[in-house]
Amino acid sequence: MEITFITSNAGKVREAANYLEPLGVRVVQRHVPYPEIQADTLEEVARYGVEWLSRRIDGNFFIEDSGLFINALSGFPGVYSAYVYRTVGLKGVLKLMEDSDDRRASFRSVIAYWDGEPHVFKGEVRGEITRELRGSGGFGFDPIFKPEGFSKTFAEMSVEEKNRVSHRGAALRLFCRWLKENLK
Amino acid sequence: MEITFITSNAGKVREAANYLEPLGVRVVQRHVPYPEIQADTLEEVARYGVEWLSRRIDGNFFIEDSGLFINALSGFPGVYSAYVYRTVGLKGVLKLMEDSDDRRASFRSVIAYWDGEPHVFKGEVRGEITRELRGSGGFGFDPIFKPEGFSKTFAEMSVEEKNRVSHRGAALRLFCRWLKENLK
Repeated sequence: MEITFITSNAGKVREAANYLEPLGVRVVQRHVPYPEIQADTLEEVARYGVEWLSRRIDGNFFIEDSGLFINALSGFPGVYSAYVYRTVGLKGVLKLMEDSDDRRASFRSVIAYWDGEPHVFKGEVRGEITRELRGSGGFGFDPIFKPEGFSKTFAEMSVEEKNRVSHRGAALRLFCRWLKENLK
Repeated sequence: MEITFITSNAGKVREAANYLEPLGVRVVQRHVPYPEIQADTLEEVARYGVEWLSRRIDGNFFIEDSGLFINALSGFPGVYSAYVYRTVGLKGVLKLMEDSDDRRASFRSVIAYWDGEPHVFKGEVRGEITRELRGSGGFGFDPIFKPEGFSKTFAEMSVEEKNRVSHRGAALRLFCRWLKENLK
């Protein structure tokens, strides 16, 4: 069976393939820009995107969206993480957190799969915002996010280490479990 | 003639009516939630919104969206101004600007009018981000924005003063001029 992953990010496709190929699912990448709405949750963004795409794309497909939600900043940068990374940057976020003792944050990932109707899978990893940049791996906010129970930031982990604990890994595992029960 | 203003904000309707009623246009408020997409410009957001609404609403109508664009922050908070106001707040933005000598910013407003096709009108007012909150009028980022050529922030001005120099006023004047030439 073949499932299309609508994304421009080949790294995400490799990560998804690691989970889905053992189930006999071939993951095919396709890059189709789709509207991401302004909303408070990743789930709303993903549901809108997958419905929009379903009117334009044949076959089964999924999208994935993720973001960093910081407790002391009422969830900022949340669904706008990519934009905030591009504008305010890591240093800007550290600056906003300068006087905050509450360092709690979570990375969230949502997968929305379409097979005639939407199915949503959510992964979350809790952790904290560091006081300074650490590590050069990963991307986005990885250098300032330390997952709970680890001493390394995401950017200090190897790809394999990060995938094991990451929000996206968690969402992919839920997606996999569901596919196992619902495919054929 | 009647034109519908799709907005939840009665204050904006009163402001628009001040401009449009002298042309014999009655402005009718209607609150219809519509998707606002994530994009770099207000124009993209407004165009998407007006097209989406045009498939659901009869007659001529318009929407308005505005945002604060700060030069030193690569345009942040831009189209996400309302969200950033709710989360990071005025103090957060001042914090991000703490070490910045470049205080330039602009408030932008976009009106998208639909009469069978979209027409877009853009207003902008340049100014600077103050070092501290000043004034209690207006809303949103008004207490930290001082328009060029004035000593008061938007929040220190009366409603009338602000409307005369504001980005929304500028967009409304362009919209009016266009209506005058293109109505009947």
